[in-house]
Amino acid sequence: MVFADRLTALVHRRESQIVLGLDPDPMRLWPATADRASVPSGDLPKDVSPAVRAAAAVRAHCTALIDAAGPACVAVKPQLARFEALGASGWAALEDVVAHAHGVGLLVIADGKRGDIDVSAGAYAQALMGVSDTPFGTVDGLGVDMITVNPLMGSDAIEPFVSTARASGAGVLVLVRTSNPGAADVEDLELAGGERVWERIAMLVDALGDEGVGEGGLSDVGAVVGATVPEHLSRARKLMPHAIFLLPGVGAQGGRVEDLAPAFAPGRAGGLVTASRSIANAYLLGGGEPGDAARAEAERLRELAWAISTV
Amino acid sequence: MVFADRLTALVHRRESQIVLGLDPDPMRLWPATADRASVPSGDLPKDVSPAVRAAAAVRAHCTALIDAAGPACVAVKPQLARFEALGASGWAALEDVVAHAHGVGLLVIADGKRGDIDVSAGAYAQALMGVSDTPFGTVDGLGVDMITVNPLMGSDAIEPFVSTARASGAGVLVLVRTSNPGAADVEDLELAGGERVWERIAMLVDALGDEGVGEGGLSDVGAVVGATVPEHLSRARKLMPHAIFLLPGVGAQGGRVEDLAPAFAPGRAGGLVTASRSIANAYLLGGGEPGDAARAEAERLRELAWAISTV
Repeated sequence: MVFADRLTALVHRRESQIVLGLDPDPMRLWPATADRASVPSGDLPKDVSPAVRAAAAVRAHCTALIDAAGPACVAVKPQLARFEALGASGWAALEDVVAHAHGVGLLVIADGKRGDIDVSAGAYAQALMGVSDTPFGTVDGLGVDMITVNPLMGSDAIEPFVSTARASGAGVLVLVRTSNPGAADVEDLELAGGERVWERIAMLVDALGDEGVGEGGLSDVGAVVGATVPEHLSRARKLMPHAIFLLPGVGAQGGRVEDLAPAFAPGRAGGLVTASRSIANAYLLGGGEPGDAARAEAERLRELAWAISTV
Repeated sequence: MVFADRLTALVHRRESQIVLGLDPDPMRLWPATADRASVPSGDLPKDVSPAVRAAAAVRAHCTALIDAAGPACVAVKPQLARFEALGASGWAALEDVVAHAHGVGLLVIADGKRGDIDVSAGAYAQALMGVSDTPFGTVDGLGVDMITVNPLMGSDAIEPFVSTARASGAGVLVLVRTSNPGAADVEDLELAGGERVWERIAMLVDALGDEGVGEGGLSDVGAVVGATVPEHLSRARKLMPHAIFLLPGVGAQGGRVEDLAPAFAPGRAGGLVTASRSIANAYLLGGGEPGDAARAEAERLRELAWAISTV
């Protein structure tokens, strides 16, 4: 089954288009998990390194967050920078978090925004979605279902990700128009032909996804389109009729679910609404137990998105 | 001392502008290191995982390559994708390789091409050049001297890297015009004002580096400018008079050291010539012991670059 059809089936089964962002700042973990420096095999001795203890706390936080808010979601999206900051221990924690999310039926989107020339892009693709051949046997990658990719270096830097994803039954989400203010600096530049840089990238995405369109009309090459500038969404949808849109910027960055309707034109799985801090930190705004508050906020987003995506 | 002055002093001390690229494909390691699956503490038992054994072999390969070719170089440049593909074991090997390079007096450039919004860019910067605060104490990052950064998302996605680098006495190399054919797809697009996308990125780089210019006239914000299109170099130098240029594409990708003169206009440290496969695989072309062939090729590049950069 083509990746997009697998995603579509899961969206309908879970009645959710919500992606739970995992962005664990070690200094802002949930209180009950911040000092739960245990590993799957038991409590850690007190003399292990800060990196090992912090990674265990991050693992506990992400697991608790997934258990609380996951039932309202279709996927989780770990921000790789947070795990990388804890070195080898962080990467091991990431592997555990991916396994935990898969274990409760969620897809995993590795948010690493990787991009590099041919052989290096291939190595990243192996790291995240594929396997690496070594003289000692095959080394499994992270085994995620989708990854974010940076298209600055052009088609030949994206293709290795697409081919590995396609061979692995996974998908790729290319940065097209991001949700940060700096997107104006490069992505929004006007080209000689009148269109914007991001619109040209959207055309690349559409072309790369052509051979990965499933029976439901969605492709395994999707796009990151910020929810903070809703007027871009209908234009993006016109340029990429088959792309799954990952929609960041809802909540903490000011985007509103109500503005996202064009994303869902090709169907309910056409848009994935991702939120991190607004879910994990809901208890800081509204009070209550962190898990209860996170579940309530994720459920609120789920109902909103499901309602406006009625086709 | 501003980073650029530290680099300049080292370039003159070592009489080298050569950067040794470390791009260890586990299936193409040097024969003598490919099965040397040992770790610093001794030989590995035979029953450990393929990832651990492959990471040990990669560590042995990179260490041997540094020992052989390092004396002709000023820095090493590990390609992070190769280490990431081996998971937590790979990241641990990367830490050891960085320490080994530092131990023999070389700078380290982490080639990860990271780029993300504010807090995530900050986390990557901590991972590579800074430290992370955790409830269990400070976690050291990789401690490298320079990193490569992807500017697609704009200034606010680059600034956290620059500020962490500046605070750590390190530097940043922003992708401006890369050496792959796909660079034509986005970087070379013509803008409404007549310039190319990469030229606008070059202007961003110049502005971001303004406050990091040292006594020697070079800045801590540099640029990656591919050596495969030499006609871009004089234009890039005009737009970024203070930037250190990292020049990939020599050797395996077809670029020639002889064409790089404009990079050295601000001085000998103005251009860093990076080569990976052409050094590590020199023995496959010319025969001989891998280390001897690597050292000879690195020395050949060193002499060429030093000669054309006479100011």
